[in-house]
Amino acid sequence: MDARTGLPVVGMVGGGQLARMTHQAAIPLGQSLRVLVSSTDDSAALVAGDVRVGDHTDLRALMGFAKGVDVLTFDHEHVPNRHLRSLAEAGIVVRPGADALLCAQDKQVMRERLSMLGLPVPRWQPVDSLADIEKFAEDRWPVVAKATQGGYDGKGVWLLDNPAAARQLLDTGTPLLVEERVALRRELAAVVARSPFGQVAVYPVVETVQRDGICVEVLAPAPQLDEERAMAAQRIAIQVASDLDVVGVLAVELFETAHGLVINELAMRPHNSGHWSIEGSLTSQFEQHLRAVLDYPLGDTSLTASAVCMANVLGGESGGMGIDERVHHLFAADPGVKVHLYGKAVRPGRKIGHVTVVGDDLAQVRARAVKAAAWLRDGGPAH
Amino acid sequence: MDARTGLPVVGMVGGGQLARMTHQAAIPLGQSLRVLVSSTDDSAALVAGDVRVGDHTDLRALMGFAKGVDVLTFDHEHVPNRHLRSLAEAGIVVRPGADALLCAQDKQVMRERLSMLGLPVPRWQPVDSLADIEKFAEDRWPVVAKATQGGYDGKGVWLLDNPAAARQLLDTGTPLLVEERVALRRELAAVVARSPFGQVAVYPVVETVQRDGICVEVLAPAPQLDEERAMAAQRIAIQVASDLDVVGVLAVELFETAHGLVINELAMRPHNSGHWSIEGSLTSQFEQHLRAVLDYPLGDTSLTASAVCMANVLGGESGGMGIDERVHHLFAADPGVKVHLYGKAVRPGRKIGHVTVVGDDLAQVRARAVKAAAWLRDGGPAH
Repeated sequence: MDARTGLPVVGMVGGGQLARMTHQAAIPLGQSLRVLVSSTDDSAALVAGDVRVGDHTDLRALMGFAKGVDVLTFDHEHVPNRHLRSLAEAGIVVRPGADALLCAQDKQVMRERLSMLGLPVPRWQPVDSLADIEKFAEDRWPVVAKATQGGYDGKGVWLLDNPAAARQLLDTGTPLLVEERVALRRELAAVVARSPFGQVAVYPVVETVQRDGICVEVLAPAPQLDEERAMAAQRIAIQVASDLDVVGVLAVELFETAHGLVINELAMRPHNSGHWSIEGSLTSQFEQHLRAVLDYPLGDTSLTASAVCMANVLGGESGGMGIDERVHHLFAADPGVKVHLYGKAVRPGRKIGHVTVVGDDLAQVRARAVKAAAWLRDGGPAH
Repeated sequence: MDARTGLPVVGMVGGGQLARMTHQAAIPLGQSLRVLVSSTDDSAALVAGDVRVGDHTDLRALMGFAKGVDVLTFDHEHVPNRHLRSLAEAGIVVRPGADALLCAQDKQVMRERLSMLGLPVPRWQPVDSLADIEKFAEDRWPVVAKATQGGYDGKGVWLLDNPAAARQLLDTGTPLLVEERVALRRELAAVVARSPFGQVAVYPVVETVQRDGICVEVLAPAPQLDEERAMAAQRIAIQVASDLDVVGVLAVELFETAHGLVINELAMRPHNSGHWSIEGSLTSQFEQHLRAVLDYPLGDTSLTASAVCMANVLGGESGGMGIDERVHHLFAADPGVKVHLYGKAVRPGRKIGHVTVVGDDLAQVRARAVKAAAWLRDGGPAH
């Protein structure tokens, strides 16, 4: 409890843009997010009022950070699971808990749990040897190999065309599982929040547009999605949240196929597929995550407009124009676009911000968002 | 310029809720507001990443704070005007500037400037002696006396019923002016932003509902306001901003009378009458103030809903329930209300937060906001 405000203190491990935007959402709740960062240059460290520097893989650093915190939560999945258990054993309130988070940390555990729960997943198999992959493929290559731990933004996923490629990957020593290559129409995401009390609040299902394994746009609500399938996606998200005892925001990435929905990945924290909610929903995913981990009743997830598009701003090839000048020109070109910059140094392909446009017509909203993101990346109109 | 972000640094003098909410708006712009606070317990000091403690009436403290800041702006009007001039002479970019701010610091200067510009103000007169007040009143009491400096939230304004009351007030030594008591229908406010480039962006005109001289509710847009009068209010705000060379947000408080509009007060900073814009407008007044002082093109001020109500949360008589419990119950009672707590210790009558409700029907939206504010004050339903 913060004696100055009479409110509980939330500590977030990790100082990336998710912590940065969670702090932004904490301010109206009377909160000030306490963040554990790797460096004072981290995205959240630049804006938060209560910043501690420490290594999130060091149990002593985590214990020190958790002192005086009423609830501990996370901007990423990289805290070793055994440390999560030790923290909980020491009486620290860890949300989501170690059992739930393990499913976001280890894809094999996730696939096992979801399979046992009868939830739709791609056909998959654990991998110990080349024989496992060959047996799984049954001469129907390519197959998809995934690192069981640590993948993100297309990293840790490989399309294997033949046994030789499988051999080469296995030789790196990366722990793997193998999955069928799903014939997908598109990718969707269902974001839900769940509180310790057991309340759930689900967001409208969105379409996530990917390029080179990186999410580039999110369309909310997902266009041309019939109500039955949208509800099926929401039911899957609610079931995963409940059955895995998730607390906080859970994002379920889904493949839409000709035969229905299949779960791709899980994230147990605010997620890129929910950034649109800052302007596009009555309650942003960041406020919702705080409400959930604080065990407050959850907020209304209604859309604020009939069409919302979020586009990620990826670091571009360095043009002549600085970011300040790009923002200036973008604001002149489109006074209605909402810009979110993360304060991160620009590296090609790195997510340095996002833009959101809300409106009545998805095609227009999307064109504006894509153009705005291109302006911020390149300082010029969309190509 | 912040070398880490490539963006200019905005410094705000004052650590109240306006600075707190400006920091919140700074985060998506890639900024981190630097704040000069009186105490580390100040509302903004609890949440900002770059907090300096110092006395805003001390020129040396101001000079030290301004070092490394690209533009200096204000959460209040209490920096002595001569210091603003000294800062500008030292090459510091001060927005709004000393000439403009003087009109927000000294009501007599404000009345003189507005009168000279031909803008509608109440009949008024400077006061040196009782004779001035008696001559102004011409036996038609009551008249309104105002402290030329330092008034807010009903403080510094007196209704004088007779010469004896005037005598008593004069004996306190407070520098005064005297005004007619305006027969008003209601109070309105027109909020505008202006950039150094000269761009202006005006918000929809709102109704401000006052109780005991304190704003308790703001209705956006002002109900039953014909378009002609709304445009007249906006034109007044734009003219004041342009003619006084205001940079940043300007709030013009207006009396609506049977014969038209009369200017009551000016504020040259984000203002209570604009808090609704956080959820109710595409661009909040806090983002707009930053865009204006940074000389960025201004944002779209369109409404996000057809009816918006902001209600202030005033510190109540201490009930049994703590603020955390009140928030919990409010969120259960109305998942769609947006809460803004300022992290301030509760004192009866002090503004400790506000709530905003957006929707289609003003009566419903207003009832929900009033009820929510009462919950947070008293921990019980509205009386």
